[in-house]
Amino acid sequence: MSYDLFYWPTIQGRGEFVRLSLEEAGAAYRDLARESGKGAGVAALLQLLKDRKLERPPFAPPILRAGRLLIGQTANILQYLGSRHGLAPKQAAGQWWVQSLQLTIADFVDEVHDTHHPIAAGLYYEQQKQEAQRRSADFLKNRVPKFLGYFEHVLANNRRGERYLAGAKLTYADLSMFQIMAGLHYAFPRAMVKAGSKYRRLELLQARVQERPRIAAYLESARRIAFNRDGIFRHYPELDTQ
Amino acid sequence: MSYDLFYWPTIQGRGEFVRLSLEEAGAAYRDLARESGKGAGVAALLQLLKDRKLERPPFAPPILRAGRLLIGQTANILQYLGSRHGLAPKQAAGQWWVQSLQLTIADFVDEVHDTHHPIAAGLYYEQQKQEAQRRSADFLKNRVPKFLGYFEHVLANNRRGERYLAGAKLTYADLSMFQIMAGLHYAFPRAMVKAGSKYRRLELLQARVQERPRIAAYLESARRIAFNRDGIFRHYPELDTQ
Repeated sequence: MSYDLFYWPTIQGRGEFVRLSLEEAGAAYRDLARESGKGAGVAALLQLLKDRKLERPPFAPPILRAGRLLIGQTANILQYLGSRHGLAPKQAAGQWWVQSLQLTIADFVDEVHDTHHPIAAGLYYEQQKQEAQRRSADFLKNRVPKFLGYFEHVLANNRRGERYLAGAKLTYADLSMFQIMAGLHYAFPRAMVKAGSKYRRLELLQARVQERPRIAAYLESARRIAFNRDGIFRHYPELDTQ
Repeated sequence: MSYDLFYWPTIQGRGEFVRLSLEEAGAAYRDLARESGKGAGVAALLQLLKDRKLERPPFAPPILRAGRLLIGQTANILQYLGSRHGLAPKQAAGQWWVQSLQLTIADFVDEVHDTHHPIAAGLYYEQQKQEAQRRSADFLKNRVPKFLGYFEHVLANNRRGERYLAGAKLTYADLSMFQIMAGLHYAFPRAMVKAGSKYRRLELLQARVQERPRIAAYLESARRIAFNRDGIFRHYPELDTQ
């Protein structure tokens, strides 16, 4: 089956977590809003979001279409793809564990977004810059150590080795963790340099994922959108460690 | 099997979504941090959170212990309970749909929290009161209509009737939606009155859930913690519609 991904065409955003899993799975998919022609482009995404007749209308992108199924919410999509493409453990206990990791990553992503938009998603960064500086300072001082410290500890405690977050094999949570690390390095380079070897296992995980053949090919392709100031991870020097 | 819920004992918080599902299911459970004695109380919760030897350490409460399984993240716990206690559809497509609703509710809950804590979870409300007023104004003007408008539309479009969010039977998403409506009425009474009949279907859903025998009994019991200013839904008159 070929999938259709509906997501904003000019940012990585939350859609990138889905793209990474689709790429690692070697799945056939169309990144619909990035294509042109009939039934594609941003128009197709907007049409789906505005369709008042859908019985199960998605709230927001990313949305995955798999045959007749339309799935919303990033973590939900990843759970679905993970179970179909060997990116999740086979045992139920491992599946609940991986999904709890993914949901914690999702919480972290929300907090990353709010570093530059602490007041309102509908306002420009410039309209909430002061608040953003205050929130970012707290984020770097307290939240990054809490979240990354947690995931570093998860790697250290994995009885099957510290190559992956859960068990002995790659899961969608590892792909998402790669994206978190790449994003933090882009958005907060000075803070990440300053953290030094504190998150050594996570840095190694990032490298490990990045070197996987399909991921490496994806990252070098035109399919990978570059980080930019419209996405979740944004580089504003004034928000980074000074 | 009897469950153990690990959550802060003096607030509804995110744990309340789990409590509601456990109560509706008529499941045997211990709200561990609210009990006293050996292996109970806040000490038991803190011990679990500080246990550095756990292979699968949860990030934060609520945490559910089901036999040897320890499950973290509210939506994950609800998915687990839903599948075991008839609080989720039997078909896979319905299950993905309900979980996407629950995850959208979780996103909304995060935004409710940030109305009084837009800068830092670790600071007091009084230390971010100005920012809270700015964020709350946007929340009431833009975010509440977006989220509640969405769920109202979901009810209206349910082909099995507008009694529940998904299909013809109650799911954990309905229980969570009840909590959202109750919380909003507590925290933002003027804004909710002003909204009038805009969310009529959601108001009826709230009443419908509230009247279910097990939920009604729970709400009247000492097990239900009252809303207060330490939880997610907080009533600060200055943050409500003026």
